[in-house]
Amino acid sequence: VSVVARRCVVIGTGMIGASLAAAAKQAGVVGHVVGVGRSSANLETARRRGLVDAVSQDPLTAVVDADLVVLATPADSAVDMLGALAAAAPPGAVFTDVGSVKEPIMDAARSCGLESRFVGGHPIAGGTTSGAEGADAALFRARTVVLTSTDSTDPTAIARVRSLWEAVGARIVESSAGRHDQLLALTSHLPQFVVFALCAAVARAAEAPSAFFGSGFQDTTRLATSDHEMWLAIARLNRGPLVDRMDAFADVWTSLRKAVADGDDALLLAILREARIGKERSKT
Amino acid sequence: VSVVARRCVVIGTGMIGASLAAAAKQAGVVGHVVGVGRSSANLETARRRGLVDAVSQDPLTAVVDADLVVLATPADSAVDMLGALAAAAPPGAVFTDVGSVKEPIMDAARSCGLESRFVGGHPIAGGTTSGAEGADAALFRARTVVLTSTDSTDPTAIARVRSLWEAVGARIVESSAGRHDQLLALTSHLPQFVVFALCAAVARAAEAPSAFFGSGFQDTTRLATSDHEMWLAIARLNRGPLVDRMDAFADVWTSLRKAVADGDDALLLAILREARIGKERSKT
Repeated sequence: VSVVARRCVVIGTGMIGASLAAAAKQAGVVGHVVGVGRSSANLETARRRGLVDAVSQDPLTAVVDADLVVLATPADSAVDMLGALAAAAPPGAVFTDVGSVKEPIMDAARSCGLESRFVGGHPIAGGTTSGAEGADAALFRARTVVLTSTDSTDPTAIARVRSLWEAVGARIVESSAGRHDQLLALTSHLPQFVVFALCAAVARAAEAPSAFFGSGFQDTTRLATSDHEMWLAIARLNRGPLVDRMDAFADVWTSLRKAVADGDDALLLAILREARIGKERSKT
Repeated sequence: VSVVARRCVVIGTGMIGASLAAAAKQAGVVGHVVGVGRSSANLETARRRGLVDAVSQDPLTAVVDADLVVLATPADSAVDMLGALAAAAPPGAVFTDVGSVKEPIMDAARSCGLESRFVGGHPIAGGTTSGAEGADAALFRARTVVLTSTDSTDPTAIARVRSLWEAVGARIVESSAGRHDQLLALTSHLPQFVVFALCAAVARAAEAPSAFFGSGFQDTTRLATSDHEMWLAIARLNRGPLVDRMDAFADVWTSLRKAVADGDDALLLAILREARIGKERSKT
């Protein structure tokens, strides 16, 4: 195992950031790992659990001698703070992130002169826990991580970020940022908004006793309590692709409603068969 | 434990019917249980597993000396065959069913003179398995069973059906058929159709590699491969309430789409908060 970074700074020690820090330490691919966050309680949890070697509440000081900077804050904060971090870090430091939307952060990297050293990352892994308390060094095993780069990205920067994720067990898929954002709007953001709408419809209806909700509803709506801040940021950062997917969903909904209202079994069956095809496509 | 039926005939030995037969036998509340079905292979499975005492492919002969008849076929078949079964069974036999829509079967019971002896039943329990092979005597433990009756229903008929379900561990909720169908359109049928539409939208989109679908999508769409025949029947039998719920969902979707497209964080957050309220309400 070759060392990917001697001094790795993880900005944001939530569930994803702290899990990556711990997994990379466990795999022996990073030397010293500093976790940076705002909440001293969460940082203390990260240190107590041994997920990081040191903690800091000051990102600009923490990155001064970093050779790898991982942004694991909410995606909009990462976009906002990248310029200042780039200015504070050594000129050779490689940057990566874990955000769910990739075009805005790739654009920010280009704007602040980081294009050759910034490799976008998005682990398609999540959970119902949050914070360093929910961190798990095994979180990324057999999970997909999408890496995004441009023609200007230094191949050695890509190789280092790839090595980091491979060392923690992830499967790497490379993509352009634009294609990533189009695809995730379909595979992740649309389902999340469908769940939000379904549960909001339940709230707006005259109250139904909880006994009438079965396990099907519970599974379908597991995502309903996902973090609001995160999803406001995703909606803002991936607006165009998400609105397109929402409109496409509305078209399907209109057909389905028509099939039910008209008692059109042929149309209804055709949509149910499409649903089976869509579900099959999603299976790895 | 008092005996609910000396001779119980279960019409339809799929997962629900065979599970109920087995659970009732195990609880000692039924004497002889006959399973009736069309597939001799499935009936042989039910007999081999000891879920029923005897099997038959002839419902009208099987019910001749029944004192309890449980219809566990798809809901539309139950409606279609109730009249013939009522004519073939002894005049004192109690009838019940397990269908997901209750008004049509209650109407059928009234039409064929069974109103005093028919108690509608709907166990809100399901699974991903089907047939007698997937039957499980523990399926109904701590699950809700909705019982529907009218002012004309004989209280002893209600008491017997209630005893059957209580004996297998279910929690009983009583409701009018109309209220049941309105509520299930919201808590079960709407979520199912949302999942069908979401997966159909995936099928209609340019193909996304399966690696881009995370566990959130898989959980949200677990219901996507639910039985087509069953859902065509539910759409037909519960058309009015389902269309109303689909229209209410479309209204939420329109607001949500507007919030995203306009970057209206206040509206978006309001809908996300409603979603959290809806999810909370569903929890027992």
